[in-house]
Amino acid sequence: MDCIFCKIIAGEIPSIKVFEDDNTLAFMDINPLSEGHLLVVSKKHFTTLFDADDDSLAQIFSVVRKLAVALQKALGIDSLNLLQANGRWAVQSVPHFHVHVIPRRENDGVPLDPELKPGNVEQVRKTGEAIATALS
Amino acid sequence: MDCIFCKIIAGEIPSIKVFEDDNTLAFMDINPLSEGHLLVVSKKHFTTLFDADDDSLAQIFSVVRKLAVALQKALGIDSLNLLQANGRWAVQSVPHFHVHVIPRRENDGVPLDPELKPGNVEQVRKTGEAIATALS
Repeated sequence: MDCIFCKIIAGEIPSIKVFEDDNTLAFMDINPLSEGHLLVVSKKHFTTLFDADDDSLAQIFSVVRKLAVALQKALGIDSLNLLQANGRWAVQSVPHFHVHVIPRRENDGVPLDPELKPGNVEQVRKTGEAIATALS
Repeated sequence: MDCIFCKIIAGEIPSIKVFEDDNTLAFMDINPLSEGHLLVVSKKHFTTLFDADDDSLAQIFSVVRKLAVALQKALGIDSLNLLQANGRWAVQSVPHFHVHVIPRRENDGVPLDPELKPGNVEQVRKTGEAIATALS
């Protein structure tokens, strides 16, 4: 297995672990966008949201929620972003599903606040219909 | 109730709905960062991840996963980001928990690919210890 996160889970590569249970591991991102930036991974290997299963997602986001509350207590923050990347055009850095938990503070310069620009409503409506059709 | 997403859920404000079940609603973001940009909300009102409950998160991310697969089918994409904002310094636009599902394509210009810069490992380690302590 050449997956760097599987090696971190197995203890073959060192990491700064913050939380671990049977299904999930949380550790510090060593390229932090802000102080307290964490990664949460499933111990089971899967690559993206496209091939996730509901149980793994429920376990991961339960841990993400606990970490959010711990970040409030430990760091006194009241704001945070979750960011999750799937696939090459989302610049997914490691092909093992992971959630970034990123504390936010006033004027922190973290580049995750995209400007809101209205779209073309008719085009948005057509795209929405195509997605709804694919769901049914 | 002055919450715009609660009004969308109640049908008092129009939206382009894509999926709905007992607990969850998915609709098109009218300020799309890319074609197919969706929002997924819990029908139950809560503001942020800090006051979420595990059942609501499991329901929301199950729907997020279904939508990801539908976006693959409907739009032919293979990459996407999830972005989720909590609180004022994360520039949360509507105070009702929501997940952005954002399809990604080659050179799409979506500003969600932060540059990786190594942090100070000793500082990251100390912060990790503080978070782990807050969890226990």
